Amino acid sequence: MSRDQLKWDTSAVMRYLEKEFPQAFANGQRYDVKTLKVDAVEMSLSAGENQLRPGGTVSGPTQMELADFAMYFLLLAHHGESAKLSVTTNLTCSFLRKPKPEPLLCNVKLIKHGRTLAVGDVQIRSQSGDILSHLELTYYVGNISL
Amino acid sequence: MSRDQLKWDTSAVMRYLEKEFPQAFANGQRYDVKTLKVDAVEMSLSAGENQLRPGGTVSGPTQMELADFAMYFLLLAHHGESAKLSVTTNLTCSFLRKPKPEPLLCNVKLIKHGRTLAVGDVQIRSQSGDILSHLELTYYVGNISL
Amino acid sequence: MSRDQLKWDTSAVMRYLEKEFPQAFANGQRYDVKTLKVDAVEMSLSAGENQLRPGGTVSGPTQMELADFAMYFLLLAHHGESAKLSVTTNLTCSFLRKPKPEPLLCNVKLIKHGRTLAVGDVQIRSQSGDILSHLELTYYVGNISL
Amino acid sequence: MSRDQLKWDTSAVMRYLEKEFPQAFANGQRYDVKTLKVDAVEMSLSAGENQLRPGGTVSGPTQMELADFAMYFLLLAHHGESAKLSVTTNLTCSFLRKPKPEPLLCNVKLIKHGRTLAVGDVQIRSQSGDILSHLELTYYVGNISL
Repeated sequence: MSRDQLKWDTSAVMRYLEKEFPQAFANGQRYDVKTLKVDAVEMSLSAGENQLRPGGTVSGPTQMELADFAMYFLLLAHHGESAKLSVTTNLTCSFLRKPKPEPLLCNVKLIKHGRTLAVGDVQIRSQSGDILSHLELTYYVGNISL
Repeated sequence: MSRDQLKWDTSAVMRYLEKEFPQAFANGQRYDVKTLKVDAVEMSLSAGENQLRPGGTVSGPTQMELADFAMYFLLLAHHGESAKLSVTTNLTCSFLRKPKPEPLLCNVKLIKHGRTLAVGDVQIRSQSGDILSHLELTYYVGNISL
Repeated sequence: MSRDQLKWDTSAVMRYLEKEFPQAFANGQRYDVKTLKVDAVEMSLSAGENQLRPGGTVSGPTQMELADFAMYFLLLAHHGESAKLSVTTNLTCSFLRKPKPEPLLCNVKLIKHGRTLAVGDVQIRSQSGDILSHLELTYYVGNISL
Repeated sequence: MSRDQLKWDTSAVMRYLEKEFPQAFANGQRYDVKTLKVDAVEMSLSAGENQLRPGGTVSGPTQMELADFAMYFLLLAHHGESAKLSVTTNLTCSFLRKPKPEPLLCNVKLIKHGRTLAVGDVQIRSQSGDILSHLELTYYVGNISL
């Protein structure tokens, strides 16, 4: 299977997620995909009610969920439904700055895409470009039919 | 300030959290603290509606939120309200096994409790004792009045 | 292949390493295995000349190398030569206290041992029992002939 | 203290390290700094004898040591001798590809430079530009005289 082109485009992935993973939207969060490429995805998150903290800021777990969602999104774009059972095996996160009450920007850069492991380098930034958190996620994509 | 005794007991911490951080309970999750010691806390989580995945299992972000909650709980027990502004600076997580639809057990072991940094080694386990995920959290406790 | 018993004992593993990985001993470091079990290994390290820092203390990279060596040791004990090509995919480390000029104790606890991924929870301690560093290593053991 | 300009240039830092930390060069490794800026440093490593593995490749601990060296280098450039006692508190590393027998390129990007914590995002690459490993290091710079 080629890693050089995507199988699904943004709307195909989003339709699939809304149908198969409605719980990813259960708090009223909204994801807006800006760019989708073979080795990267950029999206913004408008947080839902239960994800907000006093002052309108966004919690750490919500940031990690955003990174995880974006990485999963990219793997689905690559492999379609066969990536469904991919799972996160490792996640590391450094929280650098407190978010303001505004949508978060999330950039995933796919730095490895092997037969069984995929690794994403993720930055979550504010609207003004400050890095709020920096994450790395490893996914096990062993269920992909190769 | 001594690190050898706790300032608040379980019910004092829980009352404080329910008053100051109601959003920690906004999904209907319930935390049941089993043991609280100077270097450890053990609690179980009964997940709320929005934290469940198909099959009744619990998501990765929910597990990370549980670990974070438990670590924050322990710091509040140590320092009372002066730990309020403590923040997570680093979190690493390995997901080892998929949870079953049952309450999760979370054990935090405080392996460092310095003047500005506190480090917790966390295991999330199933009812039968399997380790579901293993985390390490670093908290910046610089706002503690020393 | 069973994960319930070891294929090689301590001296078999050590002989193999001395023959196949002489560079692991090239700085004059000496490893003394205290206990070896299916889910754990404990060993001490007497650092070599080039691993010492002023004051006789041991560097961070040396601690990470010790953890990595101990984890690899345990996988060899399980699988024999077929684990030879296992590789570390992720390593996280928190440095908690500065080592004194004395041998380090290293405990690996194998918290997952799957078909392709093995995860070790590692503590490096001083002679008096203080935790100096806490690590987690993920190994890809996909080359094991199953 | 300003974070907008460097106190020491490349040769000042290197002179200091060779004098104060000769052990960083004890295996015969050589560091060649390509660029040094307020938020980044790029250097290459020619490995020393004891750092090589069969086939001339470079070990994981050596890659972590390189990242640590480069991050420390950048903090010294910022703060001069007052950064001497800075210590690594957290390090995470993902190993993505096996190095070839050639000098490694190391890029540190300083993504946070706070009063007490500095965080570096590090890539180690091959001569052809492949990412070999991706690290994040957190330094405690509390000993800086502010």
